[in-house]
Amino acid sequence: MKAEIISIGDELLIGQTVNTNASWIGKELSMLGIPVKRCVTISDDENEILVSIDNALKSSDLVIVTGGLGPTKDDITKHTLCKYFGTHLEINQVVLDRVTKYFTDRGREMLDVNIQQAALPFGCKVLDNFQGTASGMWFEKDGSILISLPGVPFEMKSIMETLVFPKLKELFNVSAIFHRTILLQGIGESYLAEKMKDWEDRIHNDGFGLAYLPSVGSVKLRITSPNGEDDLIKIEKYFDELTTELPINVYGRGEESLNEVVGKLLIDKKLTIGTVESCTGGALAASIVSISGSSNYFQGSFLTYSNELKNKIVGVNKSDLLNFGAVSEAVVLQMAENGRQKLGVDFCISTSGIAGPDGGTEAIPVGTIWIGIASKEGSFAMKYNFGNSRERNVQMTVLSALNLLRCTILGIKFKIK
Amino acid sequence: MKAEIISIGDELLIGQTVNTNASWIGKELSMLGIPVKRCVTISDDENEILVSIDNALKSSDLVIVTGGLGPTKDDITKHTLCKYFGTHLEINQVVLDRVTKYFTDRGREMLDVNIQQAALPFGCKVLDNFQGTASGMWFEKDGSILISLPGVPFEMKSIMETLVFPKLKELFNVSAIFHRTILLQGIGESYLAEKMKDWEDRIHNDGFGLAYLPSVGSVKLRITSPNGEDDLIKIEKYFDELTTELPINVYGRGEESLNEVVGKLLIDKKLTIGTVESCTGGALAASIVSISGSSNYFQGSFLTYSNELKNKIVGVNKSDLLNFGAVSEAVVLQMAENGRQKLGVDFCISTSGIAGPDGGTEAIPVGTIWIGIASKEGSFAMKYNFGNSRERNVQMTVLSALNLLRCTILGIKFKIK
Repeated sequence: MKAEIISIGDELLIGQTVNTNASWIGKELSMLGIPVKRCVTISDDENEILVSIDNALKSSDLVIVTGGLGPTKDDITKHTLCKYFGTHLEINQVVLDRVTKYFTDRGREMLDVNIQQAALPFGCKVLDNFQGTASGMWFEKDGSILISLPGVPFEMKSIMETLVFPKLKELFNVSAIFHRTILLQGIGESYLAEKMKDWEDRIHNDGFGLAYLPSVGSVKLRITSPNGEDDLIKIEKYFDELTTELPINVYGRGEESLNEVVGKLLIDKKLTIGTVESCTGGALAASIVSISGSSNYFQGSFLTYSNELKNKIVGVNKSDLLNFGAVSEAVVLQMAENGRQKLGVDFCISTSGIAGPDGGTEAIPVGTIWIGIASKEGSFAMKYNFGNSRERNVQMTVLSALNLLRCTILGIKFKIK
Repeated sequence: MKAEIISIGDELLIGQTVNTNASWIGKELSMLGIPVKRCVTISDDENEILVSIDNALKSSDLVIVTGGLGPTKDDITKHTLCKYFGTHLEINQVVLDRVTKYFTDRGREMLDVNIQQAALPFGCKVLDNFQGTASGMWFEKDGSILISLPGVPFEMKSIMETLVFPKLKELFNVSAIFHRTILLQGIGESYLAEKMKDWEDRIHNDGFGLAYLPSVGSVKLRITSPNGEDDLIKIEKYFDELTTELPINVYGRGEESLNEVVGKLLIDKKLTIGTVESCTGGALAASIVSISGSSNYFQGSFLTYSNELKNKIVGVNKSDLLNFGAVSEAVVLQMAENGRQKLGVDFCISTSGIAGPDGGTEAIPVGTIWIGIASKEGSFAMKYNFGNSRERNVQMTVLSALNLLRCTILGIKFKIK
């Protein structure tokens, strides 16, 4: 079983868009145990498309094609597939009804080009797109499969997850590579590798693979087993060890995100939260709210970006703002405590820092961040420094704040720095 | 003149690393007027590498290969290139001296694998790497050029910028492709194509290329000219026409984002803003604050996710919440107007909607969003429906709200739906 990915789009070749579709598909197919042997990116050019799909179908069992399914003139994938598979376009009534509804629901006018989105190659299996107007298509030829999908990432992912992966699993009885993932926050990859060296050696000695998958502010560790499901119990034991060793850092297993983990905890314990944000400017609340069902625990926030509003809206002491500055323990503590009262919540998280790239001083350099947490047991604050990148500072602050809240809810003690 | 990019590395195929090298090289070569016809990603496999470089050299004048030049066992690009070009590795003394110095300077031990980094294919032109230990290589065959570079992005970029681009310019007297981009919000790709059909035809008749680059909530249009800088004035005239035709939608040109455009307007006019958010839960404020220097205009926000806080904190009338519901014109108008007073800002934007995926009713389905804007001239509200995806609803609301604000500041009138 071998797969190839073909990405179609001039915007990819001229570097205007980074090809994240290919890496996502590569990752998901690998997880299913279907190795991707090659990714090819080409322009919206008929001959290029014909040559590439022919090459791919001759050497691979599965070919995933993305892009070129939009309604505009430069999108020619559908016509080219008709040419290659010797078929023609026909209006698919079911798809036309859905596309029509898509426009009606949004109160938008339906144009002729939109109707053409329902014209699909006769004989292919249509893969319904519930997120947009470009359907996916499933072709088979000489025992190989070609799947054509829209290039818009969330439409492509939705069709892959709901229709393509289940069908591939059923057809190929693919033996997924057995793997388990554990999730950590607030610890560097190299520090982790150094600290857990013996643990890692034992994993390798057991014949397992271990991969570090770092991203901003967190690290995923993936243990893979070539043998089968029995090993999964062994892997979970390794994870238990890591959790005992690093309770502050290990926040979950599998595919959970930290805001989901925190959300589940709050729902379980019937607790509510709010935030008072300065440097994160709403990004912390937005991360909490991005989880469906967050209205069960998230009540609201004050974003007090200016010092004036810190005083006027959440009642931070003017003299403390003057004496200690907005980026100080005294100020984040008042933000959290007063915010908790005013929002009427069980927990309130506050943030204040210098996100950068400008605005630092010798005493308080760019990247200095204070996070405060208030609960009915009292309040505390932690100081961090995350460096010079504005975007990274906000991301790191959001993750650190969520993890602080997680530990607070669970009663895991921090050493106050 | 045609180019092809070959990226070598298992980590790219399994999606552990996104292939940003290919997009960077594609962008830079396009700018130089060298069109990239194809990008291929393959694993560190001798046969795959041999087949791919042979194919590429047969159809392209320039082949850029990245990756597989590290000191570990899985890096086989150098050996494979020797095999393909019928040569052998020889220690290059100049490179060896530099690699030795690299280790001495960092106080690190020089291992045998590091010495092997100075073994390079006899007969190729060596491209010095001053950022790492893997040299670049320049081969020529039957009039085509193959350049092999390390996969570490900053090493690759450094060699490209200092050695490869200057040499390519000298050799090929390349004329850069001229292009300009215009940015639109709140208009679908298909609607735009239909509405601007004549305009598009004239662009094609002038011998220009036109590409639609859609993303969630916005569309970029790129016009390219093969002729030279004189055409840029013509292109700007086409953009002026589009701006006159669609003043509500066209928000900028080039590489600006909507939050930057709005930020510059606010700084220019010395105006301040704040938000009162419900369904966006801070994402609107976070987008505004992600721009460095936003503290000049952004003061703060109330995130009133619960109805109780809508009343308690920003004083939305309880009976209006009861009679019209939180997702209503009456409520977003009060949120914007009262927020403007309490935050002491020139403009206040409010949002309230059903982000989904649950929580809709027949009267107010998932995806219904109200956005309100209050200024000293008065206030108004607009209703939208963006569909079922929670993430997309938030993104669309943020972009629509920023664009409403832009139009309001500029005095561009909306038809109230």
